[in-house]
Amino acid sequence: MKTRAAVAFQAKQPLEIVELDLDGPRAGEVLVEIKATGICHTDAYTLDGFDSEGIFPSILGHEGAGIVREIGPGVTSVKPGDHVIPLYTPECRECKSCLSQKTNLCTKIRATQGKGVMPDGTSRFSHKGQTIFHYMGCSTFSNFTVLPEIAVAKIRQDAPFDKSCYIGCGVTTGVGAVVNTAKVTPGANVVVFGLGGIGLNVIQGARMVGADKIVGVDVNDSKEEWGRRFGMTHFVNPRKIDGDIVQHLVGLTDGGADFTFDCTGNTTVMRQALEACHRGWGVSVVIGVAEAGKEIATRPFQLVTGRVWKGSAFGGARGRTDVPKIVDWYMNGKIEIDPMITHVLKLEDINKGFDLMHEGKSIRSVVVF
Amino acid sequence: MKTRAAVAFQAKQPLEIVELDLDGPRAGEVLVEIKATGICHTDAYTLDGFDSEGIFPSILGHEGAGIVREIGPGVTSVKPGDHVIPLYTPECRECKSCLSQKTNLCTKIRATQGKGVMPDGTSRFSHKGQTIFHYMGCSTFSNFTVLPEIAVAKIRQDAPFDKSCYIGCGVTTGVGAVVNTAKVTPGANVVVFGLGGIGLNVIQGARMVGADKIVGVDVNDSKEEWGRRFGMTHFVNPRKIDGDIVQHLVGLTDGGADFTFDCTGNTTVMRQALEACHRGWGVSVVIGVAEAGKEIATRPFQLVTGRVWKGSAFGGARGRTDVPKIVDWYMNGKIEIDPMITHVLKLEDINKGFDLMHEGKSIRSVVVF
Repeated sequence: MKTRAAVAFQAKQPLEIVELDLDGPRAGEVLVEIKATGICHTDAYTLDGFDSEGIFPSILGHEGAGIVREIGPGVTSVKPGDHVIPLYTPECRECKSCLSQKTNLCTKIRATQGKGVMPDGTSRFSHKGQTIFHYMGCSTFSNFTVLPEIAVAKIRQDAPFDKSCYIGCGVTTGVGAVVNTAKVTPGANVVVFGLGGIGLNVIQGARMVGADKIVGVDVNDSKEEWGRRFGMTHFVNPRKIDGDIVQHLVGLTDGGADFTFDCTGNTTVMRQALEACHRGWGVSVVIGVAEAGKEIATRPFQLVTGRVWKGSAFGGARGRTDVPKIVDWYMNGKIEIDPMITHVLKLEDINKGFDLMHEGKSIRSVVVF
Repeated sequence: MKTRAAVAFQAKQPLEIVELDLDGPRAGEVLVEIKATGICHTDAYTLDGFDSEGIFPSILGHEGAGIVREIGPGVTSVKPGDHVIPLYTPECRECKSCLSQKTNLCTKIRATQGKGVMPDGTSRFSHKGQTIFHYMGCSTFSNFTVLPEIAVAKIRQDAPFDKSCYIGCGVTTGVGAVVNTAKVTPGANVVVFGLGGIGLNVIQGARMVGADKIVGVDVNDSKEEWGRRFGMTHFVNPRKIDGDIVQHLVGLTDGGADFTFDCTGNTTVMRQALEACHRGWGVSVVIGVAEAGKEIATRPFQLVTGRVWKGSAFGGARGRTDVPKIVDWYMNGKIEIDPMITHVLKLEDINKGFDLMHEGKSIRSVVVF
C-alpha cells in the first residue's frame, strides 16, 4: 500500500513529505493508521545528528495514536478498529525483563529495533525501491505504520488522538517517573529540575499523588507560569538566588527533598538533584538524556548517608498495562494534557514543529493526519 | 571513678594505656563496663590522621559489648546488670529521622557526638585534669565508658562479649546492608567487592537470606578460602581474568547481578559494582568509606536503564531495635562470628591489633578487659 510520511533522508536536513510504499503486517504485526503524533526532543536529537546510532533514511516519530487497520497472522490482543498508542518500549510479557516484574525495559525486540527494522530483520517501508528504516520501533511520522503486536497499547475509543498521542512518550515519561519509578508519596516534598514538557508532567504527576511542596527549578522565568498551572507550589531560578542552589533547595524543603527529578539532561544538574535530597531517604531520579560521553559524579558520602540515585525510562511504565491507565487518568481529569499541546500542525508543516521546539516556543507540537 | 583505657593522645602515635578519671552518668546517660571491643578500620583511619575531623586526645573504639553498671536520672530503658552494645548510630525514636521510619541515621545527638562530647557538651573523661574526648559516641577502648541511654542496645545475657562486640559495627554493617539496605531476596545473584570483614559479613548475610550465586571479588587470592567459609559460591580475582571485570561479572551472573556491594572504599570499584548490576533492576550498595575528596562517577545511562545506586551506614540498622535481633541470629546459628575473631588481645596489646590489621593478618582482633 501507499502512505504519506515525513522522511528523514539524512541527518541535519529537513524532513521531506513523500509517498512511500508500505508492506502489510506479517505474523505478529499490526498495521496502524496514525491519526496524530507529537514531535519530541528525541526525534530532534536523532535528526540533528547527535545520536551516533541514528539510522537514515528513516521515518522518525515515536509519540503517536491511531487505529488498527489490519492484523497479521497470530495477532490476538488487538483487532481492526481498536484505538492504540504505539510503544517504543514494548511489553512482550515473556522475556526475562517482563517476567521479572521489576522493570519495564522489555528486551524481546531490542536488537532489531535498534537497527531500524522489524523483528524479522526487514523494514516495511520503501521509497522508489530504496529501504526506509523504522525508528524506535514506531515511525509515527507516517500516516500508516506497521508495529509488532507487543508494541501497541490498546486504549479507550473516546480519547482524542491529538491529545492521547502525547501519552506515547512525554506524559508517561513524566507522570510515570513519579508514580512508577520514584513512587512519590502523599505529603512528600518534591523538586523538579527543568520545566519543559517532561518537567511539567512530573509536576502534575506529583500533584496527582498528593505531594506537598512541589518546587520547580528553571533558568527561564517564563516557565514559572507553566509550572504553577500544573501544580508547582514554589519556583526557583538558580541564576537569581544568592549562594548555592543545593543549599537553597535544602532550606526550602526543610532539610532536603524527599524526591527530586532531573528533566534537563545536564549532568551538573543531575548532581544538584541528588544532593538536594534529604539525608537518610531522599530519592533522585534521572529522566533527562545526557550528551554522549558526559558522566554524573558525586561523593559516595551522599549515598552512604542515605540518598538514592536512580533513573527512569518511559516512566517505568509497562506499555500495554500502564499506558491505558494513564489515558484513563487523562479522560477522568486526574491529569491534564490539553494546555500542553501548544501547536497543532499538518504533516506538511512538521519542520515548523521542530523549529518551534528548538526556539523554545512550544511545550508540545502535535501533527494531525 | 577511675578506668583503664587506651588513649590516643595524638594522631599517628601508638595508643597509651593509662588510668583515667571518669565522671559518672548524668541525666539520660549510663555507665557501661566494657567487657570486649573490636578494633575496626575506622579507628585506624582516625588514629592514622586521615580523618580531618578527628579529635585528640581521645579514647577510640566503637565496637564494644559490656554491662550497665550505673544509670543517670531519667533512664528507663536499661538498668544496672543489663548487657548492652554501644551504638555509634543511636536511636532516639523521636527525631525527624527516627520518626520517618525510612532511615537509621538518628540525628538527635549528631552535633555533639561529632565534637567528641556528650549531649550536654562536656566530656566525662579526663587525665591529670586534661579533658580526654569521646569518639563516635562510644569510646570502647576504655574499661568503663559513659553513653547516652539512646546509644545502647540491650542484648540477651547469654551472648559472649568477645563475639557480640563485633555486632557493634562490622557484623551489623555487612549483614544489615544485605537485609535492611539492599533487601536482598531469596534466589538473587549477589556480587561482593572486597573480602575483608565487612565483605565476609555481606556474604553471610546473603547466604542467610537465601541468595543463589554469591560472587566474591578480591585481588588477594588468600581471601577465597575465607569467602567460601561464609557462603561465597564463586571467587573472582580481577587481576587474573582476561578482559574487563564488569563484563566478566555480567557474564557470570546471567546479565548482571541483582545486588552488588562495595566493601573496598575504592571509588573505581564502586563504579564497577554499579555497572555489574543487571539492567532494569540491579541495586548497588556503597558500604566502603572512600578517601576524602574522591568521587564516584558513571554515565547516567546506567541509571536510566534501571540500575539503582545507594549506600549503607551501620547496615541501615536501627541500633536499639535491630542490633538485639542480630545478636539472636548469631546465638541461633543463622550467622557466624567466631571464625572471624582471629585474634584476642589484652588491652596492653591493643597496638598489636592495629599492626595486625595494617598487615592484613587479621579479620577481626578483639580486646578483652
